[in-house]
Amino acid sequence: MNILAVDTAGRSASVALMRDDALIYETVCNCGLTHSETLMPMIDAALKTAGLRPDSIDLYAVTAGPGSFTGLRIGLSAVKGMALPRQTPCAGVSTLEALARCHTGQGVVICALDARRGQVYWAAFDLETHERLIPDAAAPVEEAADFALRCKKSVFFVGDGAALCYNVYKQALPCPPALRVGRAAGAALAAREMWKNGLCVSPARLMPDYLRLSQAERERAEREAQNVEKGASSL
Amino acid sequence: MNILAVDTAGRSASVALMRDDALIYETVCNCGLTHSETLMPMIDAALKTAGLRPDSIDLYAVTAGPGSFTGLRIGLSAVKGMALPRQTPCAGVSTLEALARCHTGQGVVICALDARRGQVYWAAFDLETHERLIPDAAAPVEEAADFALRCKKSVFFVGDGAALCYNVYKQALPCPPALRVGRAAGAALAAREMWKNGLCVSPARLMPDYLRLSQAERERAEREAQNVEKGASSL
Repeated sequence: MNILAVDTAGRSASVALMRDDALIYETVCNCGLTHSETLMPMIDAALKTAGLRPDSIDLYAVTAGPGSFTGLRIGLSAVKGMALPRQTPCAGVSTLEALARCHTGQGVVICALDARRGQVYWAAFDLETHERLIPDAAAPVEEAADFALRCKKSVFFVGDGAALCYNVYKQALPCPPALRVGRAAGAALAAREMWKNGLCVSPARLMPDYLRLSQAERERAEREAQNVEKGASSL
Repeated sequence: MNILAVDTAGRSASVALMRDDALIYETVCNCGLTHSETLMPMIDAALKTAGLRPDSIDLYAVTAGPGSFTGLRIGLSAVKGMALPRQTPCAGVSTLEALARCHTGQGVVICALDARRGQVYWAAFDLETHERLIPDAAAPVEEAADFALRCKKSVFFVGDGAALCYNVYKQALPCPPALRVGRAAGAALAAREMWKNGLCVSPARLMPDYLRLSQAERERAEREAQNVEKGASSL
């Protein structure tokens, strides 16, 4: 089985190819370029280097959220487009689970993405079994740090929100910044499990999971709430 | 500081770019192509994507052994050639330490490369501190498994010799094959430590560390030993 995996949920873009359980190609790019510039050339280079064509891909994997709204839409659109002609199955992987799948050992990995305004998108996984301990959530940094404090096993933080967590909870095991980066290999590994468990979908049913309203939606909701208040007070 | 790191010691080829402690680009290619085909285009793509030129590189890192004799010579020659014009400092990184640096957490990582004839090149490192526990050695697989058995902390195996070790010592923590692959990011991380400790050298002083005689040298030594024996018995 050939899996092509894409991650554009955060600042870095990443593409990976897995054949059965072997990683045959992977690129991570965190050079400050936009995903719309880098993603398709990265996919093209991966397929050409591996001597594959889109019709050799049996399963597409993509980080479907949480993450940057624009980033998620770029990755999902690319995968939907490539999967459409042959109705190739797709796995919409939690960005946080993809981060966790890049690590192994003993203890707990806490995956955190910077959600701005003092919040992180976060989740926690057992390193040995990759069992999920906390569902994906948007919450204040202190909530992830508080889980780390109460956790009976040793923990470390990954993801672009890891630095925020390390600032609040300093007793965690170290994880060098270079190892906190999102890698599409993690999405491919998670997708393989989803395939085994019958959790993959058709390209049309692949959807983002933003977890939180976008800034525009939040502001509209606030405006509408104010209008309702004004209307009520003017009665 | 910009570090360009290269790993061609095993079956996969990998190139990474680190800026200070951030990983800005990485490719791993394990598609069955020879390193002489893939390495220079991979380096070219890395530099171009990151908007860098060879004269922006402050430190070259390369896995200098143990590993495939031809693979090591390809990586070392490429780095020596690129570093020569400006006498850019070079870090000849242990291939086994580069493998270990890609992992973090708690416990011990045992890095093993298939050295054929029932042997592995192996070493062990503490995952939290990356302190070396065992020097690089060529030894029967059982020796690495025996260390794992006696180790007080939990262990897992990485490298292309990991499967051989898992066959002998089945109580180790799991590590999916996709995460056992050599990555140049590990060489870059090790090189940064070597730079801090004054262990980098000029391109001319960058040398491979084969650990074992090549097959040709082994056979010549055996022939010469037989000749000496014949000479002695004919006296």
